[in-house]
Formats: sequence, C-alpha cells, structure tokens
Amino acid sequence: MMRSSALRIIPLGGLEQIGMNITVFEYEDSIIVVDCGLAFPEDDMLGVDLVIPDVTYLKDNIKKVKGFIITHGHEDHIGALPYVLREINVPIYATRLTMGIIENKLKEHELMDSTRRKVVTFGQSINLGQFRVEFVKTNHSIVDAAALAIYSPAGIIVHTGDFKVDYTPVFGDAIDLQRFAEIGKKGVLALMCDSTNAERPGFTPSEKTVGQNLDALFEEHSGTRIVIATFASNVDRVQQIINTACKFGRKVAIEGRSMVNIIETATNLECLRVPDNTLISADQLKNYPDEKTVIITTGSQGESMAALSRMAEGTHKKVRIGPNDTVIFSSHPIPGNEKAVTNVINELLLRGADVIFEDVHVSGHACQEEIKLIYSLVHPKFAIPVHGEFKHLKAQAKLALQLGVPKENIFIMQSGNVLELTEDHAEIIGQVHTGDILVDGLGVGDVGNVVLRDRQRLAEDGIIIVTLGLDESGRYLVCGPEIVSRGFIYVKESDELMEESRMVVLRAVEDCLDRGVRDWGKIKGAIRDSLGGFVWSKTNRRPMILPIIMEVSY
Amino acid sequence: MMRSSALRIIPLGGLEQIGMNITVFEYEDSIIVVDCGLAFPEDDMLGVDLVIPDVTYLKDNIKKVKGFIITHGHEDHIGALPYVLREINVPIYATRLTMGIIENKLKEHELMDSTRRKVVTFGQSINLGQFRVEFVKTNHSIVDAAALAIYSPAGIIVHTGDFKVDYTPVFGDAIDLQRFAEIGKKGVLALMCDSTNAERPGFTPSEKTVGQNLDALFEEHSGTRIVIATFASNVDRVQQIINTACKFGRKVAIEGRSMVNIIETATNLECLRVPDNTLISADQLKNYPDEKTVIITTGSQGESMAALSRMAEGTHKKVRIGPNDTVIFSSHPIPGNEKAVTNVINELLLRGADVIFEDVHVSGHACQEEIKLIYSLVHPKFAIPVHGEFKHLKAQAKLALQLGVPKENIFIMQSGNVLELTEDHAEIIGQVHTGDILVDGLGVGDVGNVVLRDRQRLAEDGIIIVTLGLDESGRYLVCGPEIVSRGFIYVKESDELMEESRMVVLRAVEDCLDRGVRDWGKIKGAIRDSLGGFVWSKTNRRPMILPIIMEVSY
Repeated sequence: MMRSSALRIIPLGGLEQIGMNITVFEYEDSIIVVDCGLAFPEDDMLGVDLVIPDVTYLKDNIKKVKGFIITHGHEDHIGALPYVLREINVPIYATRLTMGIIENKLKEHELMDSTRRKVVTFGQSINLGQFRVEFVKTNHSIVDAAALAIYSPAGIIVHTGDFKVDYTPVFGDAIDLQRFAEIGKKGVLALMCDSTNAERPGFTPSEKTVGQNLDALFEEHSGTRIVIATFASNVDRVQQIINTACKFGRKVAIEGRSMVNIIETATNLECLRVPDNTLISADQLKNYPDEKTVIITTGSQGESMAALSRMAEGTHKKVRIGPNDTVIFSSHPIPGNEKAVTNVINELLLRGADVIFEDVHVSGHACQEEIKLIYSLVHPKFAIPVHGEFKHLKAQAKLALQLGVPKENIFIMQSGNVLELTEDHAEIIGQVHTGDILVDGLGVGDVGNVVLRDRQRLAEDGIIIVTLGLDESGRYLVCGPEIVSRGFIYVKESDELMEESRMVVLRAVEDCLDRGVRDWGKIKGAIRDSLGGFVWSKTNRRPMILPIIMEVSY
Repeated sequence: MMRSSALRIIPLGGLEQIGMNITVFEYEDSIIVVDCGLAFPEDDMLGVDLVIPDVTYLKDNIKKVKGFIITHGHEDHIGALPYVLREINVPIYATRLTMGIIENKLKEHELMDSTRRKVVTFGQSINLGQFRVEFVKTNHSIVDAAALAIYSPAGIIVHTGDFKVDYTPVFGDAIDLQRFAEIGKKGVLALMCDSTNAERPGFTPSEKTVGQNLDALFEEHSGTRIVIATFASNVDRVQQIINTACKFGRKVAIEGRSMVNIIETATNLECLRVPDNTLISADQLKNYPDEKTVIITTGSQGESMAALSRMAEGTHKKVRIGPNDTVIFSSHPIPGNEKAVTNVINELLLRGADVIFEDVHVSGHACQEEIKLIYSLVHPKFAIPVHGEFKHLKAQAKLALQLGVPKENIFIMQSGNVLELTEDHAEIIGQVHTGDILVDGLGVGDVGNVVLRDRQRLAEDGIIIVTLGLDESGRYLVCGPEIVSRGFIYVKESDELMEESRMVVLRAVEDCLDRGVRDWGKIKGAIRDSLGGFVWSKTNRRPMILPIIMEVSY
C-alpha cells in the first residue's frame, strides 16, 4: 500500500556495485536526488566508455523534482550529471570544491549557462519542497565531502556520503562528530551509511600518516628523482606531496590532464596551497638535477593512456624513466585493475627504476570501528547500508545488528526498490524501473545488449562476410560469392581454407537456387549453416557469419 | 665468444610472466628441456584459448634434444607438451602423479602411442647425453613435485621447480632438505630458484594448517550443506576436505570435469585415499540432509564456465544454492581474477548463502625465509632467479645479494637469453628466437598480431561493411552501395544515420567514377575516409570500415 504521506527512498543505482550512486527521496509532491554518479564499464561491456543510470523515474515525475544534492566530487557521485541534466534540468547543490569540479564538467559539455547551481557551506540548510537538507562536514579522499541530514515530515534521514573519520585532516576540519551527535539526539529515522570498508576491522588511518611516510621516503631516496602517482582528485595527497617536496627543496612538475585540471581548480578555490616557485613544467625538468625534482602524475591504476603508463612503456614525450628514478604508487589498485598496475610496475623495474607501493596510501572510507561510531552517535531506528557491492552491504548489516538495530529494521536494498518510511514503520513496497545506460563516444543509450553481444562475438572469433549478387529474377548468381574475413584467421596463410569456404558457400547457394528457393532469408540461413559447420570442423571457432545478398539490375 | 665446452642455459619462456615455463640446458651435443608449460592469454589476446612457447630453437637443434624433464603437473609446466611433442618428439621424464596428469593430456590429444615416457622416483638419476638429472623431493600445491639436480661437465645446476618447505605435508614426505645440503656440499655452480613469493617475508604455512581450519569451519557450520571450491590439481587440499567430511560424517559430491578427472587419476595412483562409501554423485545429494553433504567444486577463480559460477548464477543443473549453504573458497584469486571472484561471491550471498574466503588457503610457493634456507643449503656460485614476473625475480635477486652471492654472479634473465657457464665464469653471450604462439580452437599460430588488432578494433566499435557492384568496365555502379553494421550501433533506432552513411558513400564512389578512378584500392580508400570521417563526427566512434567491391559480369 502506498501511503501518500510517507517518505519514500528509491536508489536508482549504486547498490549492486561501487559506482553510479543516485538516490531519490520522495515525500508527497517533492523529490530530491542525492548524487548522480557514473559507473565504469564492466569487462563485458566492450567499447563502452561509461555507464549512467536510467532516470526514467525522474522523467516521469519531473514536476516534483526540486534538485540534485551532491555529497562530493568523485565520478561515481557526479559523473552522470552532464547527461542527466539534459533531461532533468533542476538546480545542483554542493559544497565549494565539489561544485568547482562539477563546473569543469559542465563547461566541457557546454551546460554552464543552462544549469542553476548553488554552493552550500557546512552547517547550512537548503529548503526544497517538503525537505530541508543540512550539509555536515566529513572527511574523505577528496576535500569538501559532506554528509547530509535530510529533514522530512516523516523524520530525519542521515546519509553519510562517502566518509572516514580523520581527527587530523590535511585540509580543513575533522568530521563534525558533534553535529552527528546533536542530530542523533533529535531522533533519526534512518541512517544510510557508506559500506565500502565494512568488511575491514579497525580504523582507517589519518591522511596525515601518508605525509609522514612521504617524508621518510624522500629522506631515503634523496639522491634520485621521485615520481609519484596518485588519484588526481585526492587534493590532500597532492598537498602533502607538495609540502614534502618543498621541505626537501625539490621542484614539482605535474603530468596528466586530469591532474593539471584539478590542481588548478583546487588552487583557485584555495583548497590547495602551492608555494611560489614550486611548480615547473615538464620541459623545465632538464634544467634541474634529478634529486631536486618531483613529478606528480596520473596513472596510478595502470590506465593504459595515462601519463605513468606512457612513461613506463617509454612513449612519454617528456619524461624518460631510468635507474635514477624512484617511482612511488600513492594508491591501491581498485579491484579489477591489479593486473594493469602490476604490468606498469614490471615495466618501470625493467627500466631500472626503484618502485615503492607500500605504506603510501590510506583509504578514504570508514572501517568497522568508524561505522560503529557513526551508528552510536546517530542511533537510527532503521539502517540502510549503501555504497557497495552486496557483500559490503551485508557486512554493514552485520555491524548494525551488533549495535542493536533489530534485524527487521535493517534494509539491504537493491536498485529500484521503493522503501516507504513513516515515523514507526519501514517496508519495501514496490519497484521502479532502473537500468544501465551505456555511453560510447557521443552515443548515449544506442549501444545495448544486441550490439554488445555482437562485439563479444566479433572479439572472440572475428567475422566472415559472404557477398554475392543475384539477378532481378533472383534465379541466377551474377557475382560472387566472395569471402572476406576479419579477426578470424591470418588469411595470407590460409588460402586453402578460404577457397574451400568459398566452394562450400557456392554449393549451398546453387543448391538453394536449383531448388527454386527465392527467399533471401532462407539463402542466408543456408550460407550461415553450411559455412558455420565447415569452419567449426576445420578450426573449432565460431566467427560471426554475415551473408550479404545484392540484387543486380541490368 | 661461444665456448664449445661450456654449459648454456636458455629459457624459452617463463621469465616475463608466471606461466609458459620451459628452459633449455645445452652442453656440446646434448640438450635437455626442463618443463614445457603454457600461459593463459593476456586480456588483449581476444578469443585466444592459450599460449604456448615458440620452440624454433629446439627444432633447429632437434638432433641434440634428449628429452623433457618435468618438475610437476601444473599447466604452466606441462600444458604445452601436447603441442610441442608433435614437432619435438623426445621422451618425457617425470614423477608418478606428474606423469599421470600428462598422460591424461596425451590421451586427449591422441599422442599416447607416439610418446615415450619414463616415470622417475625421487633420488633416481637419469642419464641424458652429457647430462645426469636427479629428481629431489619437494613440496608444492600439487603432489609429487620435484626439484632437479642437473649434473653437467661444467658443474651442478640445482633447479627448485615450484616449491615450498612443508615440514608436515599431507601426503608423502617433506622436502628432502638433507639431499639439498649434500648436493650443496658437492659444490653447486648455479641455483635456479622459484621467485613467485620472493616479495613476501616469512614462511609459507604448512598445508596441514588448512585442514585444521577446515575442521573448525565444519564444526561451526554443522547445520548447513558445505560447498568448497578449490584448484582441481591440489590433491592434498581435496584429501583434507575428504578427511574432514568423513570425520563429520558427510558424503562428498564432486563437481567440475577437471576435478573429477584429477581425483580419478590421483586415486588410481594412490596419491589420494577416499574411504569407501564417501563419494556420491550430485544426483544423490537429494537423498541426504544438507548437513550430511559436502560438494567439492571447480570455479574458485570465478571462471565463468566452471561449476561454482553456474551454481552462483542459478544455471547449474544439479545444485541450487540457498540460505542453507556455506560456500568456502579454499583458494586465493590469481592476479587478474579478483573481480570475477568477487562477482561470484556477491551472487552467492544474494542467494542467501554464507560465504567464507579467509584462512582456508595457503600458497604452494616459498616465501623469503624458505628461499634463504635453500640458498644456504645449496650455496651456489651463481644465482638465476626463475618463475616470476620481473618484480619477483628482482625480489629474489635482493635476497641472493643479502645471502652473499656477489652482484655480478646474479643473473636476471629474459626469455631467449643465452647464459653460458663454465666452472668459474658466467655470462649472457647471446639471444635466441623466442615468442608466444597463440592457440585458438584447433588453430596453433594462425592467430597473430594482425588478427588480434582486428579483434580489438571489432570489440571496441564494431564493423561497417559497404558492398557495391561495378560493371566489367569499372565505370558504372550496378548495385549498392549497401551498408550493414555489426557491433556498431543499434541499427533499428539509427535509420537516419545509416541512410546518411549510405549517401556519403554513394557520393564518394560517384565522385571517384566521375573522375575516372578505376583502381579499386583507391575507391575503397575514398569510402573508408569519407565514411570514417562522417561516422566519427556523428558518434565519436571508429568502427572498422570494410568496403567490398564486386565485379558484375553480364
């Protein structure tokens, strides 16, 4: 039963994966949307650049939608905005750096003029229809991350965003635990808490610990150039690298487009402080001795086009890696990237560089003790673990149970679930349409299952194209059959197979024509069957077979 | 300078990767080959089933080749045999279970009759031309693994194979450390030692520790069915699972073809002892209560076609996973498989199963302390780290240095390097041809860079095929152009784009014909350029464009 005066929480993504976070909060005539992220394509989404959520539900309820509330500036929370805004043009609310990063995207997509934006400060509240939303300071691997206290007539929902507890952050304040406590004291209906590290015991160390380790590494490798790869968006990390570089009298060059962009944005917004005469261009590196320079670069995930990968394979235009380089990975591989990272490490070692990848990274997500702390401060009636794969959500559910949330008050949701909440009741009452929209180049949604299946097939065994021409009567072969293959076999060494294939097709077509078959569909079927069988018997491969018949007019 | 009376060691694979181990030992008129393994394809080897070494060097020296010495029965040490034996038909020497597993392969490839085989026992020596080879007992994640002491006129080479030190193995004896010491005492010219875990400090725990943890897990989950995934070839692990199952009065069903095969082979060779009335078929599972059964299955690496993956996605014919299942991963993900494993875990959790993946696996490879032990017993003059990526080889080189091997006596080789050794000298004196031969279906070596590049391109953005017919004079278009695409875009929703594409091609072809161009190559080029540019402008994609021109005879 749908109660008209109940709060409804509807995640449109983000609960089967880490990525594509977008959650609808609906009360009567008001909808607000928390985050609007993208996901990176799975391995089987060949050729796809990125994945965005299907927002049909928002389109169907467009009149209710009051705005997007963005918790922080990572791609999995903001990346779908430029696509979704074209259809759901409502204002965006975010903190300063978050908005700065969003604006870079809007400029790229020429959406600045058409998009209303409001920068919010911590502690500030925004009224949006039936909702009031307060931004609460947290810590994360990007500056200016916020949790949200969402005040609705049914009660308060606390959404942590992505967070950790850092008592000694590099920039700005520690997480506002007092405010979490105050809101908790008011009585919180539900807590939606980051599950990423819910399987890990203990506390995530402070970002500052990385700075101390960087100092030690700079001390130890004082005779070499230092190259450090990290996430472009981790402004605090970049700040610490710059601090350490200055301390040791080194100049800093920045490599990688996304790194350059974010440093510029963060500097303009005063979230990053770079002392004068610190930055140099890569071209100027040669003017300084190796031991007086640092290169901060993208590519910590082994991305094949990133600056570090190009350095490793020797194709970077300005930086050559050699025995006088110490390369530091200030990052951990994101699941799925382990092999790519290892390949880059091996290439760097082969060039003689020293490679360091331990103790120079901390996570931006809360471990179990931090999650317990937030539960204890907020003391929610209902627990809704968010941000994670099923195993992470389940791990947080276990913690919630340990902390006294009754089992029936814990909801592990799936995308599209409609969770209805009143002051004393919560229940999944239905399901709305959700899905993945694939973005490939300029195309949004024009690559779907059919195209992906074809790409998969083409990738496995290639394609054989059979062309032939029939006369207008459809009775006589006037040209072909010709056989062309791509991605199937090295043709120059397979003359015989290709000629035999042609004969197989010829026989199949002539047989059809002799039997009076005029239906092109049937002739194509006969070609596919005969050639497919023949090729399988010779090679144990199943290339796509594509017959093309043309009618030739005299 | 090539000395005729020097020992030459030539790895034909295995030094840029974990996989494809094969090493040539040559002295005057004698060659022996240690191992003959395959590698699994890299991510960019689309559609390739497996990779085998290029053995041109052996073919060129076929008269010298005395035999293959196989250290143990893992695919990366035996998998290329069925392919290589067709060209290098020399005897195989291996221990009992190793030979049993090889024979399974030979039967599959109908090579049993044509292949000479000799089963060797530990302590036994084989004379092969100028060489004598002694098999020395080691421990590994497969039973019957051997190290080799290779006696040559230039001195003794000790090759560890893949090994660990297990003082309390499940089956058979512990590694024969005394024999390593004796051989060391004689004076060892070079040690070729497993580098897989050379980055890891400490000792690899005994396989028996897994048995203890299994006991505890069976105790804890005494109310549910238990499903355990592990490597088929880890006979000791299977033995321990069976032991624990018997102890708790459970019947055992085996799922997955490779698991069934290896259990049969190991049982026949008495390397595995299964008490009577323990095994049942999957069909019989329904006759027993859940808490009285165990299923041992393949699929611990998330392989999409393996039994466990099919159980997880609900497509397994005989096993349905539900809340009354405890699924234990008795394995670690091999680098590159992390994501696939995680996906399977999430699917299992979603079906309500309990999933356990900690403390139920130990590595089969030596960690740093074990490597140091072997160095100390063998005390080699020269160190040649083997079995690993560059970073692993380098980590072992560091250990060798710490243990007193002079830097100039440590050789990190690359595949194809020729290392020449005399009693007091070692030097890389040249390079022989090596390479990857790709196996796709029945084809060995007929898929190379051209085909892979095409598959990559097809996988990314698909293909557009343009067909047209010209009359015999080459001046008139008599049919087409027709445009067909696959894997490019969902055609049914892109009528307009396809029709515009056709017009672009038509204009380009007519322009050529009007200008008197008769060269089909030039016409095809004009089609590719015009259509490629148009498609890029509309979609930012670069599908392969394949123009096919046919001559129509009247």
